[in-house]
Amino acid sequence: MAKMKTLEDALYDEMRDIYHAEKQLTKALPKMAKHATSDKLREGFEEHLEQTKNQIGRLEQAFEALGKKASPKPCEAMKGLLKEGEELMEEDAEPEVMDALLIAAAQKVEHYEIATYGTLCQWAERIGQTQVKKLLGENLDEEEATDKKLTKLAKGGINKKAAG
Amino acid sequence: MAKMKTLEDALYDEMRDIYHAEKQLTKALPKMAKHATSDKLREGFEEHLEQTKNQIGRLEQAFEALGKKASPKPCEAMKGLLKEGEELMEEDAEPEVMDALLIAAAQKVEHYEIATYGTLCQWAERIGQTQVKKLLGENLDEEEATDKKLTKLAKGGINKKAAG
Repeated sequence: MAKMKTLEDALYDEMRDIYHAEKQLTKALPKMAKHATSDKLREGFEEHLEQTKNQIGRLEQAFEALGKKASPKPCEAMKGLLKEGEELMEEDAEPEVMDALLIAAAQKVEHYEIATYGTLCQWAERIGQTQVKKLLGENLDEEEATDKKLTKLAKGGINKKAAG
Repeated sequence: MAKMKTLEDALYDEMRDIYHAEKQLTKALPKMAKHATSDKLREGFEEHLEQTKNQIGRLEQAFEALGKKASPKPCEAMKGLLKEGEELMEEDAEPEVMDALLIAAAQKVEHYEIATYGTLCQWAERIGQTQVKKLLGENLDEEEATDKKLTKLAKGGINKKAAG
């Protein structure tokens, strides 16, 4: 493990973590879209896939602004989150219950990303990395909007259908 | 893996997941308190340990209300989050940077819990489990308050000290 003596070291380390997480997510989202029954949910996952690809681009710009190499660092937490997502897609659930489960899994991922980008923005601002702060702030805003959209989908009908 | 045919099955499964997560957290928090340099942060972790014990009590009441056995289900994501926390405490970081890292790790845990309790409350409400909804809503409120408190601690001085 690399030494983390300064806040800049910590910033770089966390950026590598979320860079890996976003890359993993681009592989999981098409599977989640495939398992969704609700059209709106499937479209939501497809849209978030495009967003995630843009977020990876912003992260690469942020690494450049920091003058560091964009290299992903495998993250145990995100691996666990996505493994749980894989497992639930193998459940013998009613299609409507599966949609509710997919939303739950997606919101856990969104909250992981919200926590990470929230920290990163604060750290970047503190050490005067304004360009990094700006780029990652855009990713943070998108994750928060996605989380709210998922809550709206759940409350707006998917949970009702799942309850039968 | 148990079959999850209905939303009640999903509710029970997620409750078992967060029950395990909270129990694991009671083991991690004393270590996090020990590694904290800031008095306020250490006290925050100690206070959250007491809160977590209460939350476990509320979860047990919620299992009872649901008429199901309170049995924890190991959760890969939370195991990963706490493993990362363990690893960072072994970092050769300056004490002030360690405080910033501890806050980041704690906020990831809080966000995991916020996502889970948020889902649980919506599902419980949808299937008419009002007592479960009430109990887990109290846990959700506490996790959200803890997350805000951690942000305040970070912004209020810890990140500044970490930046040197």
